[in-house]
Amino acid sequence: MTTPFLLNNFLVVDHVKEALKEDVVYGDISTDFLCDEDKEFTVYLKTRQDGIFCGEIPFRTVFEILGGVELEFYVNDGGKIKKGDRIAKIKGSARSILTGERLALNYAQRMSAIATKANKFSEKVKDYPVRIVDTRKNTPNFRMFEKYAIKCGGASLHRFNLSDCVMLKDNHIALCDGSIELAVQKVRKNLSHAHKIEVECDTVKQVHDCVKAGVDIIMLDNMNTDDMKKCIKFIRESNPNAVIEASGGINLDNIEDVAKTGVDVISTSSLVVAGTMDLGFDWEQDN
Amino acid sequence: MTTPFLLNNFLVVDHVKEALKEDVVYGDISTDFLCDEDKEFTVYLKTRQDGIFCGEIPFRTVFEILGGVELEFYVNDGGKIKKGDRIAKIKGSARSILTGERLALNYAQRMSAIATKANKFSEKVKDYPVRIVDTRKNTPNFRMFEKYAIKCGGASLHRFNLSDCVMLKDNHIALCDGSIELAVQKVRKNLSHAHKIEVECDTVKQVHDCVKAGVDIIMLDNMNTDDMKKCIKFIRESNPNAVIEASGGINLDNIEDVAKTGVDVISTSSLVVAGTMDLGFDWEQDN
Amino acid sequence: MTTPFLLNNFLVVDHVKEALKEDVVYGDISTDFLCDEDKEFTVYLKTRQDGIFCGEIPFRTVFEILGGVELEFYVNDGGKIKKGDRIAKIKGSARSILTGERLALNYAQRMSAIATKANKFSEKVKDYPVRIVDTRKNTPNFRMFEKYAIKCGGASLHRFNLSDCVMLKDNHIALCDGSIELAVQKVRKNLSHAHKIEVECDTVKQVHDCVKAGVDIIMLDNMNTDDMKKCIKFIRESNPNAVIEASGGINLDNIEDVAKTGVDVISTSSLVVAGTMDLGFDWEQDN
Amino acid sequence: MTTPFLLNNFLVVDHVKEALKEDVVYGDISTDFLCDEDKEFTVYLKTRQDGIFCGEIPFRTVFEILGGVELEFYVNDGGKIKKGDRIAKIKGSARSILTGERLALNYAQRMSAIATKANKFSEKVKDYPVRIVDTRKNTPNFRMFEKYAIKCGGASLHRFNLSDCVMLKDNHIALCDGSIELAVQKVRKNLSHAHKIEVECDTVKQVHDCVKAGVDIIMLDNMNTDDMKKCIKFIRESNPNAVIEASGGINLDNIEDVAKTGVDVISTSSLVVAGTMDLGFDWEQDN
Amino acid sequence: MTTPFLLNNFLVVDHVKEALKEDVVYGDISTDFLCDEDKEFTVYLKTRQDGIFCGEIPFRTVFEILGGVELEFYVNDGGKIKKGDRIAKIKGSARSILTGERLALNYAQRMSAIATKANKFSEKVKDYPVRIVDTRKNTPNFRMFEKYAIKCGGASLHRFNLSDCVMLKDNHIALCDGSIELAVQKVRKNLSHAHKIEVECDTVKQVHDCVKAGVDIIMLDNMNTDDMKKCIKFIRESNPNAVIEASGGINLDNIEDVAKTGVDVISTSSLVVAGTMDLGFDWEQDN
Amino acid sequence: MTTPFLLNNFLVVDHVKEALKEDVVYGDISTDFLCDEDKEFTVYLKTRQDGIFCGEIPFRTVFEILGGVELEFYVNDGGKIKKGDRIAKIKGSARSILTGERLALNYAQRMSAIATKANKFSEKVKDYPVRIVDTRKNTPNFRMFEKYAIKCGGASLHRFNLSDCVMLKDNHIALCDGSIELAVQKVRKNLSHAHKIEVECDTVKQVHDCVKAGVDIIMLDNMNTDDMKKCIKFIRESNPNAVIEASGGINLDNIEDVAKTGVDVISTSSLVVAGTMDLGFDWEQDN
Repeated sequence: MTTPFLLNNFLVVDHVKEALKEDVVYGDISTDFLCDEDKEFTVYLKTRQDGIFCGEIPFRTVFEILGGVELEFYVNDGGKIKKGDRIAKIKGSARSILTGERLALNYAQRMSAIATKANKFSEKVKDYPVRIVDTRKNTPNFRMFEKYAIKCGGASLHRFNLSDCVMLKDNHIALCDGSIELAVQKVRKNLSHAHKIEVECDTVKQVHDCVKAGVDIIMLDNMNTDDMKKCIKFIRESNPNAVIEASGGINLDNIEDVAKTGVDVISTSSLVVAGTMDLGFDWEQDN
Repeated sequence: MTTPFLLNNFLVVDHVKEALKEDVVYGDISTDFLCDEDKEFTVYLKTRQDGIFCGEIPFRTVFEILGGVELEFYVNDGGKIKKGDRIAKIKGSARSILTGERLALNYAQRMSAIATKANKFSEKVKDYPVRIVDTRKNTPNFRMFEKYAIKCGGASLHRFNLSDCVMLKDNHIALCDGSIELAVQKVRKNLSHAHKIEVECDTVKQVHDCVKAGVDIIMLDNMNTDDMKKCIKFIRESNPNAVIEASGGINLDNIEDVAKTGVDVISTSSLVVAGTMDLGFDWEQDN
Repeated sequence: MTTPFLLNNFLVVDHVKEALKEDVVYGDISTDFLCDEDKEFTVYLKTRQDGIFCGEIPFRTVFEILGGVELEFYVNDGGKIKKGDRIAKIKGSARSILTGERLALNYAQRMSAIATKANKFSEKVKDYPVRIVDTRKNTPNFRMFEKYAIKCGGASLHRFNLSDCVMLKDNHIALCDGSIELAVQKVRKNLSHAHKIEVECDTVKQVHDCVKAGVDIIMLDNMNTDDMKKCIKFIRESNPNAVIEASGGINLDNIEDVAKTGVDVISTSSLVVAGTMDLGFDWEQDN
Repeated sequence: MTTPFLLNNFLVVDHVKEALKEDVVYGDISTDFLCDEDKEFTVYLKTRQDGIFCGEIPFRTVFEILGGVELEFYVNDGGKIKKGDRIAKIKGSARSILTGERLALNYAQRMSAIATKANKFSEKVKDYPVRIVDTRKNTPNFRMFEKYAIKCGGASLHRFNLSDCVMLKDNHIALCDGSIELAVQKVRKNLSHAHKIEVECDTVKQVHDCVKAGVDIIMLDNMNTDDMKKCIKFIRESNPNAVIEASGGINLDNIEDVAKTGVDVISTSSLVVAGTMDLGFDWEQDN
Repeated sequence: MTTPFLLNNFLVVDHVKEALKEDVVYGDISTDFLCDEDKEFTVYLKTRQDGIFCGEIPFRTVFEILGGVELEFYVNDGGKIKKGDRIAKIKGSARSILTGERLALNYAQRMSAIATKANKFSEKVKDYPVRIVDTRKNTPNFRMFEKYAIKCGGASLHRFNLSDCVMLKDNHIALCDGSIELAVQKVRKNLSHAHKIEVECDTVKQVHDCVKAGVDIIMLDNMNTDDMKKCIKFIRESNPNAVIEASGGINLDNIEDVAKTGVDVISTSSLVVAGTMDLGFDWEQDN
Repeated sequence: MTTPFLLNNFLVVDHVKEALKEDVVYGDISTDFLCDEDKEFTVYLKTRQDGIFCGEIPFRTVFEILGGVELEFYVNDGGKIKKGDRIAKIKGSARSILTGERLALNYAQRMSAIATKANKFSEKVKDYPVRIVDTRKNTPNFRMFEKYAIKCGGASLHRFNLSDCVMLKDNHIALCDGSIELAVQKVRKNLSHAHKIEVECDTVKQVHDCVKAGVDIIMLDNMNTDDMKKCIKFIRESNPNAVIEASGGINLDNIEDVAKTGVDVISTSSLVVAGTMDLGFDWEQDN
């Protein structure tokens, strides 16, 4: 997948500028004091691990802001990479390359790790009609990069923020004395017809309440697969339009079992907890 | 350690405001549509894992900006927490609590995980006169929180950014035809007397060059412990003032061996690759 | 309705500060040069027209930023006001009051006019199970105030922005050679399960395509009421879950006819084209 | 008039970027999910009403920021347009065009409506040596676009903000116990010689005081035309340098009567209360 | 003079925050590492030179942002100070005081030096009906502080910026083939009646042209006092309303001669080129 | 010296934009109303004083933002200029040139004056192995331009901010009951190995304490040259690695005497208190 959905240029430039200020502050005293302004060289972005690459857009933006560098990418965002592969050729101002190297990598290493993890989860259930989605457990002020990377890895997304889909959790329901029906009714009165309502359910009873209330998305939270199956059967029979989402404690080991229950969506915060992929710059000869 | 070094209020507020905009955008439609403005309740921040807590400052800031919430912390930043411990009492506006919960946790879960990891590394070598430090491999625009968490975990910090310490890597040296002496000389001509010079060395030869050039910090990069010992012996004899730093591929398994070589500093980017600690809000009864 | 949905303080403060900079720049040379710093007085916000009041939040924010002023509101946002009514008492620093008067009124006059207009539309169809909603035809960078005012007037809202609901218009469909089915399918592959799809239909044929494609919201655009009735009948029979929205050329004269067709939602950009309500400050004696 | 006075590029770009963030947030999910990145098409900006066009500058800026679009304008800002006229050709990236369409129109529809209204007022009094000017009753954070549109429509401008001209209103005068002379004297002591003083007068007595005080601009506020004529006669005889401004309740019906009195300037806040002009994008064949 | 004209709080806070970021970046490592958070002390702001104090507002703002400090000023902005005088008592958080000291002084030292210089110029001509004013030759992004200080020193201000008064210089005139009349006419067509026109004149001929064109302010630029007197006589006789400004090479030695010519205004860029006043913090005993 | 160290483009653009907003606000009413958009001319930046030129980067940025101007510099930053020299050719849009002239000069005049002063200080001691450095006594939010100019003038820099080097002053030491050893020990526990410690000494006793504590930089503050010599002798014998800095009351008259003592560094805040160099635009014929 190559689409820059989520990462329109005008949204990325400000983030990268801020990050350059965070790192450069009063200049790169190693490079500025050592390296002549007109010095140029060529380096390659290489991977030292297998996985899915992601991060071309902020990577490019770093060097566009610093100036004087041309980039050629051999792999698109979402493309497979194998240990040793060259991902991109970076050519131009030695100063810009040395100053921007770390920041460009900081974006790409995190985004590639997330894309790779999202891909592993997706691959695991690729034979089931289910989609893996993320949550709102993002790094503050880094969400658009994390969500984009998840898409590139082949997984899907849940809501973007608190404004685009209602999700009622136990504490919301508690504010209505435990009545899902009352809670949904209160929200629906104010809610736009353009937005959906999701409700988190811990019990079969709550699932029944959701169906009665006409909830759009029913989340089965931390249920065992037997309970899940019962709930799904009930929902499918009573409201075939409802989307069913499973959540809570899902990992690579148990995800296939969850998929087998027939849920539509599996959500997990672990997609963004993916560490960093080992990418680096190499000064290797170009043939 | 309880000091808000690095996280002065005026530096944190802007970050949290930006993150609230990222998550709230046009309002929290679940909470705003459901919950009365004057509704209040009390919840507790609890941990479901052992470790070191960190994150009070952005956590507080989230609720100061949203308003109407009082916080009492039972544990300071850097304090030990055990599974099940209450970390803080959160009391006040139900709206603010529900809207701010996820963001406040997003800060604290990441910062606590980093503090916990930094603590594990530090504990491992606590009997050696060595300090563990981080690198610049941070999440873009999240560095001050990551560096702060490392300090809270008991580890130390390397430079903050590209302006406060020179670090010459292979590519810098290559720009001077491989001559460390020339590179150091060039930099020193422009460098403030208030800043130090560090040079990355892959070989014993380079270490000798550093000593000759009067480098302040000599980094032994990816050396085996035998080579490291030889280099350290040589450096100590020729320039007792030089700080010796080991770097490259260091983990919890091999860190004690590295410490035994007698280096002053061990740097590792893995401190910030720590995932998230399992913290959550509980509505449990207060006795 | 009194809820500050959409207008959380941290979202409003930046807008008002920016607007104060726009108007004050190098100071209020009339007031600063004339009025002593410790001078105080009391004035009243009054209305010279009947309608619905809206704007307390930015109004308050103007004077909180300028400082030294206490406000007491006699009417909440969304409350009915009659020509001559006092809306609020403004007491304190003469300087702040004189400098902030125009800006505070600029917000409240526009928001009250919109709330009043939204109220008129809503009242007109209050006996029908239909909701009136707005569009994205807002004043740039003033959207949250306009949407909030619409809610206060008793109407509802459509999507907030381009990220929270899909709406496929003729030009989108044209990109798929006129096939609604193909377009919906393409979008659904990428779309979150948390978001809905709406499609604009000019013809009965398109409405049939929408039903087949399982579209969530079907917009009948610029249809006459006869065609609308036919479409609605068809949709209700084939997919009772679909929301039906009418749009295009709707005004106070024809809205009841449209409501009678049985649509769920009527959208109109005219809610925000409402001019200004005649509100002013009066120095009248307080008894 | 074609001059981009008021709308220098560096002033406009920030406004448009902010507005794009307001509307796009996490991407345009309709377009991004449907439309290939390299898809291009050509559309025309057309008018469905007669009037004066205005808005080229922010219109262009929207597409420059989104990228990949070429614009050719057939009409300049301030130019006459007739129902059905093509105003501009928009050619290039389908994504940018679809995403930016609404925002670009939101600027141009408001600015053209204001230019058209300003033009109507100006035309009505074109045979009199009088100029029509606006007030500070602008939409917050939209002032520069509104003032620019007024100029394009052929009317003039009053002061830009609170810093560039003194205007003493009843409440200012009240602070000096009703003495215009005292008020003017106090202000003049501090005021730059580069700025003018205007005073709002409700009575003939106040006009006399203004003349005595050497006020630069005398505003006749809400006076009937008989009183206005008397005041004007008196002012012309006593201080031919004073500018005379009429204000209050002026509309298209009575403006000619006011002009006939011989005032220099007529100010009205109604210029910016102009609604939106019906402009739209058409996919019509290009011959 | 004690009025915070020009320096409204909302205008100052952003400047000081930015300056704190410039200086503090990743924390004050001297103070944060040394000083306990709850440590408090009292210091005094003292002057080591005679002059006029200025700078209370940004000084206060620095410590309000850092927090935990109470300030008591013994001297108002614009007040006379003598070597050794205490200007303010600063009491509270040792951390805030140590971190903010330099920045607070950087504002006050520059502003006091300017106020003192402005005062010297004003005193020199206090027996003449002339006012001393500044120019636009300010430090970029520091103008409001410089202009405020000039007022505090007892001098007056010229225009604030390029938008609030027309000033036509030789190069503007050259664009109209040297015709002042044509230039003034062109500008007047577009100019608001709320703004004045000033023209720079190098020759007696140009002064005559200005009078003919009805220019509001006539600047005699770099003329000798004999030519000035001739011009002034001519202007007074032909247009008593015109303001006459002298400019160019004016200093403390020649300013009285210029004042004697009878000009209304003397402008000089040298007011802001005033260096720094020697102010400092003293830990002296409080009795 | 031609290197744009400190002034990377992405750091300068925001400063200049902000400054343009400060000066232009609602447009340049002199130029916009007078000058046609397509008018072009050529002017020269000339100096009316001897010295060192500095300021090309912000100068260029002003015109890049305003647009339509080409610049050719005949002198690099740091280059010698003589009264009457042409520094640069400025060719293009008359509007941009007239609007940007003052701001571009405001940067260059201040930076050139600082570079010239720094050069004078450096030249005075060029035969001694000593470097002249600045302090943190900068104009708020103008520091990077001032520090850059100092480098261009041939002097060196002290620390950039409070985060990149520890400096313990009398008040810091007082917090440890006067014990330098204790203070240094406390700081060193937390300080990164990448940062240095400097201590301000007023007495010989303090210098001895510094040597004992292993301080990196010892500042001799306001000592007479005899005491300085004694201290230097002692330090050189006990810790040859320590850097010795002299500070306090240093000027062009006494700097050579200070240099003769053998100190490594002389710091003075007077480098940035340099006024403005007399640069201007000339419309002179190009041959």
